[in-house]
Amino acid sequence: MTAHNAPSSAHAPSSPDALTYEQAGVNYDLIDPLKVAAQRAAAATAANLAPHGFTELQASRGESAYVVDVGPFYLASIVECLGSKALVADEMKALTGKSYYDGIAQDTIAMAVNDLITVGATPLVVQAYWAAGGSDWFGDAQRAQALVAGWKRACDTCGVAWGGGETPALAGIVADGRIDLAASCTGIVNPKTRLSVGDQLQAGDAIVLLASSGIHANGLSLARKLVERLPNGYLTEVEPGVSYGEALLAPTVLYSPVTEALFKAGITPRYCANITGHGWRKLMRHPASFTYRFNHVPPVTPVLSFMQQHAKLDDREAYGTLNMGAGFALFVAADQAQRTVEVAQQLGINAWVSGRVEAGPKQVVIEPLGVTFGSDELQLR
Amino acid sequence: MTAHNAPSSAHAPSSPDALTYEQAGVNYDLIDPLKVAAQRAAAATAANLAPHGFTELQASRGESAYVVDVGPFYLASIVECLGSKALVADEMKALTGKSYYDGIAQDTIAMAVNDLITVGATPLVVQAYWAAGGSDWFGDAQRAQALVAGWKRACDTCGVAWGGGETPALAGIVADGRIDLAASCTGIVNPKTRLSVGDQLQAGDAIVLLASSGIHANGLSLARKLVERLPNGYLTEVEPGVSYGEALLAPTVLYSPVTEALFKAGITPRYCANITGHGWRKLMRHPASFTYRFNHVPPVTPVLSFMQQHAKLDDREAYGTLNMGAGFALFVAADQAQRTVEVAQQLGINAWVSGRVEAGPKQVVIEPLGVTFGSDELQLR
Repeated sequence: MTAHNAPSSAHAPSSPDALTYEQAGVNYDLIDPLKVAAQRAAAATAANLAPHGFTELQASRGESAYVVDVGPFYLASIVECLGSKALVADEMKALTGKSYYDGIAQDTIAMAVNDLITVGATPLVVQAYWAAGGSDWFGDAQRAQALVAGWKRACDTCGVAWGGGETPALAGIVADGRIDLAASCTGIVNPKTRLSVGDQLQAGDAIVLLASSGIHANGLSLARKLVERLPNGYLTEVEPGVSYGEALLAPTVLYSPVTEALFKAGITPRYCANITGHGWRKLMRHPASFTYRFNHVPPVTPVLSFMQQHAKLDDREAYGTLNMGAGFALFVAADQAQRTVEVAQQLGINAWVSGRVEAGPKQVVIEPLGVTFGSDELQLR
Repeated sequence: MTAHNAPSSAHAPSSPDALTYEQAGVNYDLIDPLKVAAQRAAAATAANLAPHGFTELQASRGESAYVVDVGPFYLASIVECLGSKALVADEMKALTGKSYYDGIAQDTIAMAVNDLITVGATPLVVQAYWAAGGSDWFGDAQRAQALVAGWKRACDTCGVAWGGGETPALAGIVADGRIDLAASCTGIVNPKTRLSVGDQLQAGDAIVLLASSGIHANGLSLARKLVERLPNGYLTEVEPGVSYGEALLAPTVLYSPVTEALFKAGITPRYCANITGHGWRKLMRHPASFTYRFNHVPPVTPVLSFMQQHAKLDDREAYGTLNMGAGFALFVAADQAQRTVEVAQQLGINAWVSGRVEAGPKQVVIEPLGVTFGSDELQLR
């Protein structure tokens, strides 16, 4: 049970005019009691599997996908929403006339697929949830076709079948002119030894970071709030010829080709983290107590540098909120780290052996930046 | 790819002041081109399963759940949305002070589970998708707890594990004060002989109808439009002591206990239809050409009689739009029909052997009412 786009900030802003998530309008104090109640109730339903002869993998509770042991393999499933990134596409359409919904489709699928693969699952089926504020939404043929084409292309990239979905018109529930996008994904962990819910993680393991393409689909509330401060709004240039809006809309990288290629290369990650709503704090989501020490940081994607600068975030705030160039983390045996990097790079995804797992208190230590996140700064379970 | 709550009306209204779905604000001419494009693109992704060693069950395309052959059993998955029923709960809360979200939770799960079981699947895992218009939605503790409690109870009734889900606050996408509710469901068809995508259906089979509890979660746009005509709105009595609003909010029946009990009783339905957005026209959703002849109609749930009367719908319109007392149809071998009824009744769900499958043109013939729906009156594929 995750609250999407949920980088609750456990620290005071560094600068009096720094933007925070609270200012961006999300109040987790209101959501958290529901989440806790839902998590408790959900955990109590595990017993329902026994009459079918199956059991849940209890270690998957609190992980990014839910896993059930169905005998010959594990079944993994998830539902994930895009969040507010589509609002940026809508603003940019008004400014440029282009439709960005092919990329938005990829973002939506990435939210589900990149979470599902963290447990070692091969994604097999994606279902589409496209809830519009009214029938009119679907009447913009260019946008609708972009959504369909992008959705199909992302399915092809991930090697999943698009099973179907829902396209309701929900006037009065979804805001007029908007669309609420989500994806469900089902997969299997096969063979069962591919399971990577973290029981194999140990001190000495290497942490390989995979490059992000930009903000992905987390941190968009902050990104949208920041627009008010920019001289030309979304058209402000991040680098020559690239507007802030376009840079934000770079589609999220789909990482399942990497995890599938790793399996074929004989590499089973011991743990994975999809770096989403809590930035690098997500790197300590594993339940055990380890220190995650980084002696390298990937190059920061220009749009994220731009955001850090203009939102006046110090490194601690920036790395605690945004992916800062690292979209996914693979925790692998140290002697497989270099090969892991090569497998990713062969697929065109940059990768670095950036850190290691150490015995010690639960924390993320980013040495080049002098930033440390303690265990009290990530509350996911 | 289904357009939820989509009873497109293929016939002219009987009365000049009859309510139609077009008046209720859903324009399928705008949605249908997207649906067709999405269905085509989705079908083309089936090939993505081959490298994994799996194949889709092509007959499941266009059925209510998508099925993949993963070897030892079939995998079935689906995502479904509630639709606009939550708006009735919100109106009634303002009028009575009660929260109806425990029932709304059951409705949402029913939309997914009752579709998944049509292919012969045992539902195993449900994921929750609760997208609110802002953090404030979750601040109403009574409502939030009702949603959690109802969700858990429905999972328990269906014997599924609640795997987790998403609780995003989507200001600007979901309307302020509202919630967009959906559920994904994953299950397996095990043993594979339980598959009921329709290849076994034959002339002479019996049609057993299972009782609905009311409007379920389809036809709500019409139901909400009708309120404007009622003297006391949602508080108008449907029967003594029961308001229209409360009657509408009767939770959808969960039918998976019936299909599971049938399996244990040695009965495998040859086909199933979840009677939702097209009313009894859904009874001819099977792709082949058969005549479905009914010599009996179940008693009409009071709230549906009330709607038929006040919306001035003739039987043809009412049965072509609403479930009219029959929430689910089981197509079984004639010599198993009576036993099927008994299995349902033992679970407290009323059931009747109401019709039979005949060789002949594709149509639904409701003899007691003199109503016939032709094949041109249902376009689902």
